[in-house]
Amino acid sequence: MELRGKVLVAQGGGPTAVINQSFVGVVKEARKYSQVTGIYGALHGLAGIVEEDFVDLTKETEHNLEFIAQTPSSGLLSTRDKPDAAYCREIFKVLKAHDVRFFFYIGGNDSASTVSIINDEAKKSSYDFRAIHIPKTIDNDLMLNDHTPGYGSAARFVAQAFMGTNLDNRALPGVYIGIVMGRHAGYLVGATALARKYEDDGPHLIYFPESPFDQDKFLADVKRVFEKHGRCVIAVSEGIQDKNGVPITVKLNENEVEKDAHGNVQLSGSGSLGDLLSQLIKDNLNIKRVRADTLGYLQRSFAGCVSDTDQIEAREVGERAVQFAIGDNLDGSVAIVRTGDYSVDYQLVELKEVAAKTRLMPKEFINAEGNNVTDAFIKYVTPLVGSGLPEAYRIRAPKVPKILNK
Amino acid sequence: MELRGKVLVAQGGGPTAVINQSFVGVVKEARKYSQVTGIYGALHGLAGIVEEDFVDLTKETEHNLEFIAQTPSSGLLSTRDKPDAAYCREIFKVLKAHDVRFFFYIGGNDSASTVSIINDEAKKSSYDFRAIHIPKTIDNDLMLNDHTPGYGSAARFVAQAFMGTNLDNRALPGVYIGIVMGRHAGYLVGATALARKYEDDGPHLIYFPESPFDQDKFLADVKRVFEKHGRCVIAVSEGIQDKNGVPITVKLNENEVEKDAHGNVQLSGSGSLGDLLSQLIKDNLNIKRVRADTLGYLQRSFAGCVSDTDQIEAREVGERAVQFAIGDNLDGSVAIVRTGDYSVDYQLVELKEVAAKTRLMPKEFINAEGNNVTDAFIKYVTPLVGSGLPEAYRIRAPKVPKILNK
Repeated sequence: MELRGKVLVAQGGGPTAVINQSFVGVVKEARKYSQVTGIYGALHGLAGIVEEDFVDLTKETEHNLEFIAQTPSSGLLSTRDKPDAAYCREIFKVLKAHDVRFFFYIGGNDSASTVSIINDEAKKSSYDFRAIHIPKTIDNDLMLNDHTPGYGSAARFVAQAFMGTNLDNRALPGVYIGIVMGRHAGYLVGATALARKYEDDGPHLIYFPESPFDQDKFLADVKRVFEKHGRCVIAVSEGIQDKNGVPITVKLNENEVEKDAHGNVQLSGSGSLGDLLSQLIKDNLNIKRVRADTLGYLQRSFAGCVSDTDQIEAREVGERAVQFAIGDNLDGSVAIVRTGDYSVDYQLVELKEVAAKTRLMPKEFINAEGNNVTDAFIKYVTPLVGSGLPEAYRIRAPKVPKILNK
Repeated sequence: MELRGKVLVAQGGGPTAVINQSFVGVVKEARKYSQVTGIYGALHGLAGIVEEDFVDLTKETEHNLEFIAQTPSSGLLSTRDKPDAAYCREIFKVLKAHDVRFFFYIGGNDSASTVSIINDEAKKSSYDFRAIHIPKTIDNDLMLNDHTPGYGSAARFVAQAFMGTNLDNRALPGVYIGIVMGRHAGYLVGATALARKYEDDGPHLIYFPESPFDQDKFLADVKRVFEKHGRCVIAVSEGIQDKNGVPITVKLNENEVEKDAHGNVQLSGSGSLGDLLSQLIKDNLNIKRVRADTLGYLQRSFAGCVSDTDQIEAREVGERAVQFAIGDNLDGSVAIVRTGDYSVDYQLVELKEVAAKTRLMPKEFINAEGNNVTDAFIKYVTPLVGSGLPEAYRIRAPKVPKILNK
């Protein structure tokens, strides 16, 4: 018998510029199915389910849905709650009471883990139920995905940011450090390479969580670039770690470091890593003008910097999730697969293949020195940031011959 | 007799998103005058004059000039050099050798000061010479100007940034602090108010250099907002100071603070102020999730966030500067005057009225409590950020009645 019942959609973890595209994709696609008896949104992710805090999305206009799709950050609000067995029992009480039969959770690998747990609990309690994980993360670190919705827009943001700060650093030379998000994976910091156009453009150095960070090597790199160009622009992932896997921000920081429910150390929302690296350069290299910015939350929520490719794909993963769950009666996680240069398709993969796992940058995307991306990475990332990326231009006028022969 | 000779254009101080519009305005306008025997650009501002480091802008194409105009940061590169009498003598040796008779310096109040000094030296040495200061500064702190080129685009950037971080903070509640540029004037931090649309949108609190910063008052403000909304978004100017005029960043910072040639304390390029305020809240208010971002150099150089109004005006000040100097044989500083709602005109004002002076926010732009802008400020700033500012939308769907009556 065809499964009939309500659709529930929710968002978990950190927001992205296009996470509402997926949410709206779910809602608009779900409206097409006669077996759907209602479409609810849970506020603040799982927490909203436990609290029975739902909005009735069948009473939302098409126009407003499209406006929300264009708005960054989670329109249904978010949570970092991680469910245990007791939490799941609470969730099922509510889902059953409202006859929710289709659940769509938009989030990263922690959210995939959540969907997997809920799915297992549903099976244990013989509740006929489809749960689908819809990917999103600016970190781009989900297994089996060529890339994840949210990454392209964040990559575009950091490219535009470094395009500007490279020009700034060229005008007023010195060392500039920009700290970029990315807990375990260097995909986002790698995208700063798209800021380059001319041979001497920065970022001149890029540091990844995947390549063990060594202070002496770092200082030697900076010294070499500064001696060559009279300036140095450096992109550093917040997640850089030493050869033993200890985050540099934990290693250099004297203060206590916060952890979330998933056991993740707080990396964002503080300028300390940038300031510590800045001090390291000042103390060791006799360079006067050293500046550090931490790009922070702007990377995932800035209003008005979005990849059109990312927007479309985020919408499509939401649509396809509904088609898999309601049309095909399947569970799983929707993954983006690259099928051409450039084209993608969507596949349903096992939740357990994505849940709580982290995809790192492959070796062929990072140079042997561990301080730059490769051409293979540039080829990989270029289509993801979308069309119309700004471009920097320089004066080509010739030098005037000196008269005073200085 | 009509003054004949070369035009020299240069850029000083921190870059903006539209500083090249003014530069290109000078070059394209200067090409129309028969008494102009050449158009040179000095690289790295005054330093390029002393070094005789010129490019011949008569050999630059129209297309490339227009591309450069769209590129943020100083295309001619910049400097923070401050000239003394000896430095000026070096400058005049070079200007005379190259028969430079018209000098255009695009910069802030320090640059106006520079032009004033050079102008005085020219008069002393009876060198027939016109020097014009063309305004630019994201701080918007030049005397006699309704606003300055560069401000509108930076204001747009911070508005879009806070629009996003407000949505982020709404999705994952806590306290968010964003540190905004502005050494003495709060115009830029005030523009974060344009991020608001719904009644409970942040920034909920805004702190200005003009209003003495009191820690206890600050903590009480944050506590009140957090209790009301369960979250709090705060915009803080990097230039906030205590009632004795001591910058809070100097007061709270244990490390030595850098100064530039103009005696300005280094405020940007470090996350320390945000981190210190963050710690203050954690230590005193028992709020767990407190995050601070320092918006940093992105505010003045981000590629791809620009006010169209600002672009046009920046171009026009450059054009008018040439018309004043070459067409009318005058010296001075070009000022933007508001003549309607919204229209502007350009006036030539005395260099001494602008040089090394700072225009602060008038009382009517800041509320009595010193923690928010007024409606008068919103009216003032709205046209400056240009057309098509992104807008945030929210779900309007009604709540679903609870079944389990939690």
